[in-house]
Amino acid sequence: MKNMSVYNFAAGPAMLPASVINQIKSDLPSFNDSGMSVMEISHRSDLFEKIINEAKTNLLELLNLSDDYEVLFLQGGATTQFAAIPMNIAKTKHIGLVDTGHWSIRAQEEAKRAGIKVDTIASSKTDQYHNIPNVKQPQQDLDYIHLTTNNTIEGTAYNKLPNLTTPLVLDVSSNFLAQSYQFKNVDVIYGGAQKNIGIAGLTIVAVRKDLITENDLPGMWNFQILSKKNSMLNTPPVFAIYTANLVLKWLKNLGGVAEIEKRNRQKSGLLYDFLDNSKLFNNPVKKDSRSLTNIVFSTGNDELDNKFIEQAKENNLVNLKGHRLVGGMRASLYNAMPYEGAEALVDFLEKFERDNWRTK
Amino acid sequence: MKNMSVYNFAAGPAMLPASVINQIKSDLPSFNDSGMSVMEISHRSDLFEKIINEAKTNLLELLNLSDDYEVLFLQGGATTQFAAIPMNIAKTKHIGLVDTGHWSIRAQEEAKRAGIKVDTIASSKTDQYHNIPNVKQPQQDLDYIHLTTNNTIEGTAYNKLPNLTTPLVLDVSSNFLAQSYQFKNVDVIYGGAQKNIGIAGLTIVAVRKDLITENDLPGMWNFQILSKKNSMLNTPPVFAIYTANLVLKWLKNLGGVAEIEKRNRQKSGLLYDFLDNSKLFNNPVKKDSRSLTNIVFSTGNDELDNKFIEQAKENNLVNLKGHRLVGGMRASLYNAMPYEGAEALVDFLEKFERDNWRTK
Repeated sequence: MKNMSVYNFAAGPAMLPASVINQIKSDLPSFNDSGMSVMEISHRSDLFEKIINEAKTNLLELLNLSDDYEVLFLQGGATTQFAAIPMNIAKTKHIGLVDTGHWSIRAQEEAKRAGIKVDTIASSKTDQYHNIPNVKQPQQDLDYIHLTTNNTIEGTAYNKLPNLTTPLVLDVSSNFLAQSYQFKNVDVIYGGAQKNIGIAGLTIVAVRKDLITENDLPGMWNFQILSKKNSMLNTPPVFAIYTANLVLKWLKNLGGVAEIEKRNRQKSGLLYDFLDNSKLFNNPVKKDSRSLTNIVFSTGNDELDNKFIEQAKENNLVNLKGHRLVGGMRASLYNAMPYEGAEALVDFLEKFERDNWRTK
Repeated sequence: MKNMSVYNFAAGPAMLPASVINQIKSDLPSFNDSGMSVMEISHRSDLFEKIINEAKTNLLELLNLSDDYEVLFLQGGATTQFAAIPMNIAKTKHIGLVDTGHWSIRAQEEAKRAGIKVDTIASSKTDQYHNIPNVKQPQQDLDYIHLTTNNTIEGTAYNKLPNLTTPLVLDVSSNFLAQSYQFKNVDVIYGGAQKNIGIAGLTIVAVRKDLITENDLPGMWNFQILSKKNSMLNTPPVFAIYTANLVLKWLKNLGGVAEIEKRNRQKSGLLYDFLDNSKLFNNPVKKDSRSLTNIVFSTGNDELDNKFIEQAKENNLVNLKGHRLVGGMRASLYNAMPYEGAEALVDFLEKFERDNWRTK
């Protein structure tokens, strides 16, 4: 249990399951009677080999992927992969991109810096990214199409992946293992761990093995070398991988992605229902494009929004400030956020509305 | 205190100071009464801003560097920097390298993969890397000379840096803040944190600010972008930076690098003295080239070496196996290893020698 009852709605780094925090604490100072903490064990030890291999197996199982995919545990966040993925697998250096807002544009910028031609094949920019665009099969030959499954800042998500002949590369950072997708014709699934799979400092990449081919990239960006070395060309982020494995085991014990999606729909549903009926607060996202994990809302009045954020904080509902690009509020309801957190937020929203709707 | 008294001689990840482990434990589940652990706080929060800025200041102070240097907290280990540093600062794409063994060769390989011409300007290869070579001013124009201050595998180190007109770039991974150097005419000082400054998953780069110039590298390798964003182009490894700051504060409280160097000389001196007088064990390194942090030794007999490693482990002296490239044993005595650890090792070496020297 927490010393103090705080619900943390941060967009990432974010809440960890309470049982995971407890496990981390009880594994200090000695992990598995080794006399060493996980932070001190060698990445070449049997203790760690077991952890990294378990994490790999658990991830493939939870994503329902076959071993046609290699799992890499890397560093540097999705931003590193925005460049590294096309450098590794875009054979003709020409990719497509679905523009759903900030992080998709960042993916485009980094790919261009890596010398890749990027065609935007669909965009919801003209709708201020309040929906996710319908993606049609492009006419040109493209190595793949990059798609952000959930947009952390804009609060949108794909509920179903587009069905195309060109393969997809999916940045799943902000709904990694938070809802089920059918991964058909998908080359890469990747994302940072710090929202749904543990702590900052770990990036997970699941890449089709047949796309991993010889190349002359520096080792730490070179999927073939990293794969041969089981993500241990050099010292991997041992503690972050251990934490990820604790979270993956927690999720498996809960019942996997289907069960957590059900819970995430309950949590976000509670909040969306309130917002849809509110006289004070508004969510701008088209209903079929709504994110389960990042819910954006505002009163339309900056002063009132700030008052809400401050008072929420005083009531132990923290990190509700929206991203500076869109303003307003954002509640991130990742896997580790309990239903009670969403309830507490809605209760407070109701109270704030009662007290303030006349002043809007 | 540890549950079980184990001395961990691993080459990295390695021991943390007991007080740091205790602090980490007591900061769970709530850090600074925030109701959140450090693993859950936002990198954009005041709580974390304070940590990263403190860590930066502490590092510059401990290294005795002016603010002519920018400190970057990055990911991907020294291996990432083997390529990233020349890509950022080698203006003519032509560097020199001092070959002192495995990690210097890895630095060369990665720089070449990044399109850099690398001239070996000194090497101790013909002496099986049992010493560190004397470095003379090279005749050719070079952007810089790359030098590994301490060689983790070979057990050698520079006690004093060469005094040249060409600037140096120093990989200090395995003696980072373990001994004092005069950083004169040094462009970059860099290394992984997992030996002397905390946990795996953090790389620290101190780079001369005047070398940080505009370029079109992808963001996560681009020193200008990373510097502008105070190492937060994306989510940094929050927990690893927090741990690093705890270790840096611990070191400052002890008395800084001068004091820890004194202690490291005592610890390694005890072990070297034993080895120099041993009938069974031998250290192959030339006396003026000996590392303070990684001490390699063997009996010259593989079977006996393995017996030693096994029995040491049974006596709670763990991770003494030498690197597979050189075999034998290696004791890493980083900053967090107490004097008692070196004493316990020497006591056991003496006992093993008494029991086994006739069988050699």
